[in-house]
Amino acid sequence: MRFVIIGGDAAGMSAASRCKRNDPDVEVVVLERTSDVSYSACGMPYNLADPARSMDELIVRRAGVFREKQDIDLRLGHDVNSIHRERKTVTGKTSSGDDFELEYDVLMIAAGARPIILDIPGADLPGVLPLKSLDDGRRMKSYIADQKVQSALVIGTGYIGLEMAEALYELGIRTEMAEILPRLLPWMPEEMAQVVKDELEAKDIKLRLGVETKMIERQGEQLKVSFSDGEEATVDMVIMGVGVRPNSELAAEAGLELGPGRAIAVDRHLRTTDSDIYAGGDCADAFNVITGERVWVPLALRANRAGWAVADNVTGSQVELTGIVGTGVFKVLDLEVARTGLSAQEAKRSGFEPMDNSIKSRSRAHAHPGNQTIHINMIADTRTGRLLGAQMVGNEGVAHRINSVAVALHAGMTLAEFAQCDMAYAPPFSPVWDPLLTAGNQLLKKLP
Amino acid sequence: MRFVIIGGDAAGMSAASRCKRNDPDVEVVVLERTSDVSYSACGMPYNLADPARSMDELIVRRAGVFREKQDIDLRLGHDVNSIHRERKTVTGKTSSGDDFELEYDVLMIAAGARPIILDIPGADLPGVLPLKSLDDGRRMKSYIADQKVQSALVIGTGYIGLEMAEALYELGIRTEMAEILPRLLPWMPEEMAQVVKDELEAKDIKLRLGVETKMIERQGEQLKVSFSDGEEATVDMVIMGVGVRPNSELAAEAGLELGPGRAIAVDRHLRTTDSDIYAGGDCADAFNVITGERVWVPLALRANRAGWAVADNVTGSQVELTGIVGTGVFKVLDLEVARTGLSAQEAKRSGFEPMDNSIKSRSRAHAHPGNQTIHINMIADTRTGRLLGAQMVGNEGVAHRINSVAVALHAGMTLAEFAQCDMAYAPPFSPVWDPLLTAGNQLLKKLP
Repeated sequence: MRFVIIGGDAAGMSAASRCKRNDPDVEVVVLERTSDVSYSACGMPYNLADPARSMDELIVRRAGVFREKQDIDLRLGHDVNSIHRERKTVTGKTSSGDDFELEYDVLMIAAGARPIILDIPGADLPGVLPLKSLDDGRRMKSYIADQKVQSALVIGTGYIGLEMAEALYELGIRTEMAEILPRLLPWMPEEMAQVVKDELEAKDIKLRLGVETKMIERQGEQLKVSFSDGEEATVDMVIMGVGVRPNSELAAEAGLELGPGRAIAVDRHLRTTDSDIYAGGDCADAFNVITGERVWVPLALRANRAGWAVADNVTGSQVELTGIVGTGVFKVLDLEVARTGLSAQEAKRSGFEPMDNSIKSRSRAHAHPGNQTIHINMIADTRTGRLLGAQMVGNEGVAHRINSVAVALHAGMTLAEFAQCDMAYAPPFSPVWDPLLTAGNQLLKKLP
Repeated sequence: MRFVIIGGDAAGMSAASRCKRNDPDVEVVVLERTSDVSYSACGMPYNLADPARSMDELIVRRAGVFREKQDIDLRLGHDVNSIHRERKTVTGKTSSGDDFELEYDVLMIAAGARPIILDIPGADLPGVLPLKSLDDGRRMKSYIADQKVQSALVIGTGYIGLEMAEALYELGIRTEMAEILPRLLPWMPEEMAQVVKDELEAKDIKLRLGVETKMIERQGEQLKVSFSDGEEATVDMVIMGVGVRPNSELAAEAGLELGPGRAIAVDRHLRTTDSDIYAGGDCADAFNVITGERVWVPLALRANRAGWAVADNVTGSQVELTGIVGTGVFKVLDLEVARTGLSAQEAKRSGFEPMDNSIKSRSRAHAHPGNQTIHINMIADTRTGRLLGAQMVGNEGVAHRINSVAVALHAGMTLAEFAQCDMAYAPPFSPVWDPLLTAGNQLLKKLP
């Protein structure tokens, strides 16, 4: 049996490796457009922050290892441009210009996502850079070093934008951020997003909120950026951090169904609407465990997990993924920001009757040195008492705490059940009542 | 209605405060033997480590606040020595020697626990000190300062013993530890306990394992301690850290039933075998959610929670506590150590057919600076696939992670369900697969 995988990053290489471990007799062919496989894309902002590190440190496993140690037929520079479902082949072009056609018994589309490039004049100027692939990272790192970048504008204030703001700050680069929405982190209560805003401003990162970026022009050695409010910024580099789009065109052209965000629709087995074709990773959708709805959340854990599940299904198991609850975390300067589940607004849109409550708690015990504030917003359904989500911001103790809410969401716990959980306490790590328990208890008092 | 509470620490004062919030018309009388209420006992090792801090910083709320702001009739220096169930009174003696008798409508016993003092010659010598009450803390702090303590022996290697070893190390005091068992942390796999042992030894803390402490004698300004292996230690101070016993004698003498560890047996409403008498905190037992068995685990969160539940029940609600899962965490030097649920051995004793597996994972993403090893042992039931517990050791990322396992245990999740959870990932906080997911996946592969 030949298992062909389009795309050699998290989902694709996870599937390939696990497939060979499950059954060495399956012929596994991976077709990767670029020359990089299996790297930690999420590590790029941190790598960029340290000029001494090579971007290649982020490569988890090199192509040679997959080929020689794992007997995976990994073909780099292979750009698939068509899936022929009737004859079960894929066709494409290699980086050296040769056409190829390859038969598959089972196919997996793990083509990832690509950065959105704003359709504005000057978006293609040198120094206007996205950050998605390892090559993007290499280009940005060289640009910063070669051009001795002193100032930068980040367009977009999502995870990547905020992580890049931190990286630029670490590099001593004067940084501005432009955001089309009137505020940061719209899924978060205003007062908690304000904590993030205060942190950025405390580090002298200029925020331009509620402005559209209209045009980028060359101005001598620099770039002049014009905004919808009539203001301008003059910087050495512009980072395009306005989000990503799923690489789902191949699938769409082959007649496969697309889901939310035009990601490839897959069932819980990761099968597309063609039962010989799986899809996983940033190009595919998933089910939200809380709402049962299809969602598109391009994050790394989900991609790796999908790769494993596809491999298991290809080699004869019947693995179903229950789905995601929408857990995410990022660090921005001295803050940890995390979320899981639904915001009150999202819960309402999904037909719940949510109630939410925000609290401030502490990261350590009463009178323990180094104590920091932790802000939590918690959301529950007033009809069923079910816990629906939580969001957190703080200087410490946020990133790992969110997982206990994520587990509760997977378990379908009520808020009352969650509030009874036996959580860990020691003075350096928590108040006696963990901040999440305090959030739970406070919201419980408000529930009808 | 008069609600009388014996004991004014975590459980007692939580009950008193919440009772008055629930229903200001209830007359709440708290009888506290000592002159301290509502302090963070767990904070004492950290307070001791810093000579500049007053032990009184650990007082969360002062007696006057309870009396004046909350209208709680708080009587310090009131030592209850008998409960008269037939006439519903308690009798006792005040610190000034006066007898008292007080009627109750509802009684709560929140008498706490007391340190075990080894029954050996010299256990009552000056400089042989336990650490349980705030007065113990004050005494130890004065002793260290006044006697210019340069060396100490900690008898016992439980949470308090290990936390005190850290405090003494911080103070630059040469420290030894004596433990009757042949190894540290017997509930933990040997190789993980070894990590803790290595850390202690790396900080020059001498461990005497498998030795009984036989005798303590005065030797000039110092204390000479003799062990069962014939060795001796000469130190300035000895800390008695061999555990605590529930203050359940009052209850036993009144004919109330005792449970494991001779703690007062309570139902899920926190009622003793007399329906007018509740008990909570370190003197009472609880149900283990996983086994359904009664257990005695004297920890702070449980005490606070019991206090609230008693107050709610006294004021007319019907609150049941589901119980505990046995979550605990402590810091020792540069390590975080945590557990929740059952160890493989405990699971076997409770009738499960457990399988466990130990892994090493990392605290941060591939190639992320500052990455540390995290050791995890995870336990599941081979018959049902149910997750039974986990234990963790590492330099970072342990303390809050354990809570997600605790939540899964409360939810009765199978290991397979837990391994599907959507956990948070960002390079500074975790590998893509959270260490707990890796532990889950690895154990899952071993399950039949």
